[in-house]
Amino acid sequence: MTKPFTIAIAGLGTVGAGTIKILQENAALIAARVGRPVKVVAVSARDQSKDRGIDLSGIRWVNNPLALAQEEADCVVEVIGGAEGVARELVEQALKSGKHVVTANKALIAHHGLHLARIAEDSGVVLAFEAAVCGGIPAVKAIREGLAGNAYRSVKGIFNGTCNYILSRMQHEGKPYDQILNAAQKLGYAEADPSFDVGGIDAAHKTAILASLAFGCPPALDKVQIEGIEAITLADMQFAKELGYTIKLLGIAELTENGLDQRVHPCLVPLGTALAEVHGVDNAVVAEGDAVGTVVLEGPGAGAGATGSAIVSDIMDLARGYTYLPLGMPLVSLSTYDFITDANRKASYYVRLTVVDKSGVLAEITQILKDASISMRTFLQHEHQPGEPVQIVLTTHQTTAAAMELALARMEALETILETPHRIQMME
Amino acid sequence: MTKPFTIAIAGLGTVGAGTIKILQENAALIAARVGRPVKVVAVSARDQSKDRGIDLSGIRWVNNPLALAQEEADCVVEVIGGAEGVARELVEQALKSGKHVVTANKALIAHHGLHLARIAEDSGVVLAFEAAVCGGIPAVKAIREGLAGNAYRSVKGIFNGTCNYILSRMQHEGKPYDQILNAAQKLGYAEADPSFDVGGIDAAHKTAILASLAFGCPPALDKVQIEGIEAITLADMQFAKELGYTIKLLGIAELTENGLDQRVHPCLVPLGTALAEVHGVDNAVVAEGDAVGTVVLEGPGAGAGATGSAIVSDIMDLARGYTYLPLGMPLVSLSTYDFITDANRKASYYVRLTVVDKSGVLAEITQILKDASISMRTFLQHEHQPGEPVQIVLTTHQTTAAAMELALARMEALETILETPHRIQMME
Repeated sequence: MTKPFTIAIAGLGTVGAGTIKILQENAALIAARVGRPVKVVAVSARDQSKDRGIDLSGIRWVNNPLALAQEEADCVVEVIGGAEGVARELVEQALKSGKHVVTANKALIAHHGLHLARIAEDSGVVLAFEAAVCGGIPAVKAIREGLAGNAYRSVKGIFNGTCNYILSRMQHEGKPYDQILNAAQKLGYAEADPSFDVGGIDAAHKTAILASLAFGCPPALDKVQIEGIEAITLADMQFAKELGYTIKLLGIAELTENGLDQRVHPCLVPLGTALAEVHGVDNAVVAEGDAVGTVVLEGPGAGAGATGSAIVSDIMDLARGYTYLPLGMPLVSLSTYDFITDANRKASYYVRLTVVDKSGVLAEITQILKDASISMRTFLQHEHQPGEPVQIVLTTHQTTAAAMELALARMEALETILETPHRIQMME
Repeated sequence: MTKPFTIAIAGLGTVGAGTIKILQENAALIAARVGRPVKVVAVSARDQSKDRGIDLSGIRWVNNPLALAQEEADCVVEVIGGAEGVARELVEQALKSGKHVVTANKALIAHHGLHLARIAEDSGVVLAFEAAVCGGIPAVKAIREGLAGNAYRSVKGIFNGTCNYILSRMQHEGKPYDQILNAAQKLGYAEADPSFDVGGIDAAHKTAILASLAFGCPPALDKVQIEGIEAITLADMQFAKELGYTIKLLGIAELTENGLDQRVHPCLVPLGTALAEVHGVDNAVVAEGDAVGTVVLEGPGAGAGATGSAIVSDIMDLARGYTYLPLGMPLVSLSTYDFITDANRKASYYVRLTVVDKSGVLAEITQILKDASISMRTFLQHEHQPGEPVQIVLTTHQTTAAAMELALARMEALETILETPHRIQMME
C-alpha cells in the first residue's frame, strides 16, 4: 500500500473533533480520492479524559501542543484559535520544521499571514487556510485557483453567520435585535460576548484574507474599515423592506481608481439578489472578475461539518501532492496598494431620522442636503399621532462619505432632530 | 526568468479567441500567480485570414490541428468541440504524446471520459475540463477538490443557459415559449437547431460529468434520463407561479438506496430558493455532502469570458505544477453503480389537464388517482366561460413514476380529457 499521509491535530474542540470524524467516517473514500490513506497520528488538547464522540485509539496523545511541530507527521492541523500564543507558535514551528500546516484560524492569517507565508515559502511547505474563510464554502480555492485567470474587480459577501442569523430573523420574524441576539446566544450561534461577531471584527478578518488572495497583497486587517450591526433597529429592517431591500452585514474588498477599498458594514441589499437571499447562518462570497463576470458561492459558514470539510479538503490537496504558495503567488510578486479612506468613498445612503412633528422640519433637512450637494432618491414618512415624534426615512443618490457625515452632523445639531440620525449604506 | 509554460490551442472560435484574450490581457498577473510566464506557441483553426480581434503575431499557425499533438508545448487546449472526429483524435494523440490537455468539450468527456482518463493516467498527464461544465463556475474543481472530503448525496443544478434564459423570460415577461425561443435565436443565445439545448442533451452531458466526479464512476451519459423543456407552456409557468414555484430545467445526480439516479427534466422549484433565483443565462450547481451540507455555486454558464476563465484556470493549475487524476481518483478505484430507472423513482408531480366543462369530470379524475394510490396535495381551477374547455391543475404527494404514468394514461383515455395531460416533477 502507498505510504499514508500523516497528520497531527492541535485542538479537539468542535472543529478538531469534526475533522477527525470526517477523516474516520470517509476514510475509504478519502484514500481512494487521494490515492493513499490519510492517517491522524497524534493529537493534542487540554483534557484527555473528555468524551468527544470520536475514536482516538491508536492516535498518540501529546500534552504539549507545541510538541506536535516535532512529531513524525507530514502536516500539522491547527484548530486551537487565536492570533497569538500557542496557535501562532505552533504554526511557526511546524512550518519551520518542514511540515505543511492546515489551519482554520482566521485571526492568525489576517494578522500574521505575510509573516507565516514567508516561513512557508522559505521552508517549501504549504500553509493552507480554506477553513479560515466562510466554513465549508471552497472560497479560498476558488479565488486562488478556480478564477485565477481573472483580474478581480471585487470580492464581497456575507462572511459572518452570527450576524446573518440575527438579521435574517429580524427580517422574517419582525423581532428586535436584542431579543434575537439573546436567542442566538442560547442556541450557541452567538458568544456570551458577541462583540467579535456583531462588531464586524470576524468579517473584517475574512475580508482582509480574501482581499489578499484576490488582489495579491499582504493581508491588511488594519486597513479594513469596520462597522458592526449593533445599531440596526427593527424599524430600519422594516423601512428597508418597504423600500425593496433587506439589511445584511457585508465584507467588501474592491479595487477602485483611487486604491483598494476594504470595509465591513451593514448594507441595504435589494431583495431578490443573491446576497439578499442568503439566510440564517449561511455565508456567501461574490467574486467579480474581468473575464468571468460575477460568480457567487454560498453555503454553511461554520460548524463542525462545514469547517471540518474545508480542513479535510486542504489535507487532501496536500496528500495528493499539490503544493502551492499560501497567498496565491510568490511573496516577491505581491503588490502594495493605496487604501481608500472613508472620506473619498462614494455611496448611496439610507438615513432614518426621528424628528419633532412640526412644520418646517423637512425644509431644514432638505436644505442641509442641498448645501452638501446630496441628491435625494426616495422619501418615506408614515402616518403618526399628532404631536408624537415622527420617523422619516430618506435615501440618497451617490455622494461622498465626507459629504454625508457633514450633513448628518448638521442634521443632528438641529433642535428638531430628536435622535442621532442613523445612516446605512446601500448596495448599488 | 523561469521557463515559460507553453500551450498550443486548437480552435479559434468564441472560446479559443476568448482564452487567448485573457492570456494576453492578464499576462503579467497570470505570470505572477503561477510563478512563470504562460505562452501560446501555436494555434490551429480553419481560416487564418479571419480577424478575431486578437493578436496572433509570434504564434505559429498550424493548418492541421492534429499536428498540435506533436508541437513543442506543455499543454494542448482543445476548443474545437464534438465528441468524435478531430477533437477526439487530437486529445488522444496529445495525451499519448505526453502533453496535458485542457478542453471545454463536454460531449467528448461525457462520451469518452473514461477512455481519455485512462490514456491520461497511463501517460502521467492531466486531462482538465473545468470549462466543459457550467462555463466560468469553478464547479469541477469544487467537486474534485474543494469538497472532496465529503461523501456526496447529490449534485444538481441549472446546467444549460439557453433553457434558463427561455424559462426566465417566460416567468418574468409572460410570453410564450416559441416567441422567446425565437428571440433567443436572434440574440445568439440559442442555436438555429435548438434541440441540443432545449431537449436537455447538453444538460445531460454536464450531469454525467459531475456525477462521475462526485460519485467516482465513469461518466454514464446513456444512463441519464432526459426530458427537455419543449412542452412547457406559458400556462404551466403561470400556474406554477400561483402555487409559489417557478419552472427550471434541472440536471440531477443523486445517490439513493436503490442506486445512482441521473436525470434531466423540467422541475417546479419553490420561489425564494437558490435555484429559483438563478436568472437568464446563468448556471448553478448545488452540491450536497455528508459533512458540509449544501453548497451552491452560481455564475455565467457560457460565453468567451466565462469559458475562457475556466480554461485559463485549468492552464494555470498545470503551469503551477499541479497534476491530478482527471476523474478525481485513480481509475482502479472507480465504483460501479446500479442506475435507477424511472419506474422506481418517487416524486411529487404537478399535472395540468384540459377537460370538458361537465359535471362528474373531477370525480373521474380523483377516482383514477385513488386507484393509483396517489394522494393529491393542491388543486387549482380558475373561472371560465361556461361550455369552454377548463384547465385544471393538481399537485400530488410523493408517488412512483410508474403509478403516475399509469394514472396519466388512464386520464388521457377519458373522453372528458381534451389534451394529453402535462405532468412536471416538483422539487421537494
